[in-house]
Amino acid sequence: MPEKEYVTYGQSSGCGCGCGCATTGASRKITGCRFTLSVMSDRFIDVILGSLAKTNTDKVWKMTDKLSTVYRGRQNNVEDAVKACFMNAFTEGVHMTSEMTFSRGCPGDVDADSMMDVDDTPVNAPALADIHFPVNCKIALYPMGVEDYMHHIATVVNHAIDLGIYEKSSHYCTILSGDVHDLFDYFHYVNSYCSEHLSHYIFEVTLSVNSPTAE
Amino acid sequence: MPEKEYVTYGQSSGCGCGCGCATTGASRKITGCRFTLSVMSDRFIDVILGSLAKTNTDKVWKMTDKLSTVYRGRQNNVEDAVKACFMNAFTEGVHMTSEMTFSRGCPGDVDADSMMDVDDTPVNAPALADIHFPVNCKIALYPMGVEDYMHHIATVVNHAIDLGIYEKSSHYCTILSGDVHDLFDYFHYVNSYCSEHLSHYIFEVTLSVNSPTAE
Repeated sequence: MPEKEYVTYGQSSGCGCGCGCATTGASRKITGCRFTLSVMSDRFIDVILGSLAKTNTDKVWKMTDKLSTVYRGRQNNVEDAVKACFMNAFTEGVHMTSEMTFSRGCPGDVDADSMMDVDDTPVNAPALADIHFPVNCKIALYPMGVEDYMHHIATVVNHAIDLGIYEKSSHYCTILSGDVHDLFDYFHYVNSYCSEHLSHYIFEVTLSVNSPTAE
Repeated sequence: MPEKEYVTYGQSSGCGCGCGCATTGASRKITGCRFTLSVMSDRFIDVILGSLAKTNTDKVWKMTDKLSTVYRGRQNNVEDAVKACFMNAFTEGVHMTSEMTFSRGCPGDVDADSMMDVDDTPVNAPALADIHFPVNCKIALYPMGVEDYMHHIATVVNHAIDLGIYEKSSHYCTILSGDVHDLFDYFHYVNSYCSEHLSHYIFEVTLSVNSPTAE
């Protein structure tokens, strides 16, 4: 029986798997987003493939596995590509949710699997500017490795209150709602805030459109 | 214009909203799970309602909003009810995902909205014991407020390796796969480990069945 290969996050020499086994972490500020589109329709494959065909992902590193897709690169470009994927998949009358995990600064991260040497002008933005629809949303921010994490969470939630997109606090998340652009502008604020104030964070977002559930 | 009501997690006196505004946090060990079933079919409402009708939730506090359902109570009972909801929704040939956020110990948590004064014998387990199907899964553990969080993450990932359900590490998560019972047994281990070693944690799980994506 072969010996098991255990993980040693942040403790071993780099194993080169791009997963979290390096000693030093990434030296560049790579923003990542792992996301899934869940389309509650028999036509879910067509909807997702149609969205991907319309989305320009030239400025991000990308990978798709059985569970989700990952984009990595500069913050603006990752946000732009994820937003485009979501907006291009929107279909009138079809219930869809999207789970997005934004993150930066994991001690086990590596410089590989990214695209940083490009400009960060959002390439999908012009085609999306005139499209509007309402979105329900839950968010949760996880500032890692710091004792005052509740303070950072309160700061970003209070900014949502200032913007008028805050609906309520609930168990394990904060509920937001608003136009799709207002929400993604807010995600940009959160990623920027975290980039400035935290060495490692995870920002979990779930979006929902055309839900049949009233409340 | 009315004055805005800001949140002050962990800093103010309790506001009684059950959300994270209390000074003291919860005094009892309440485990919670916020989860969503995403059924990629035109029949998604029937599938979800059918699952709920078969699931015994007598031993958990429950709430459903536009985005997800929350169960709160004793660890065994919450795990049992969430597992039953997921397994009862499984439909041959229908792609379904489920996003589950297990958590305990948030400094802003309150004793309200829970059901702790019941025994913790899993009430749905007998009906599920003989049902088996393969599940793809991604997990991410967030131990809050501690500097050595990567050590705790490595410990639970290595236990998945020992159990033979570990597939690989990837960006922002760990990929697992196995029989549905083996995965939920592992979630029980993680929740138990965190309960013993951490004052506050979030354990994010996404499950997927019948995916058309090969890899």
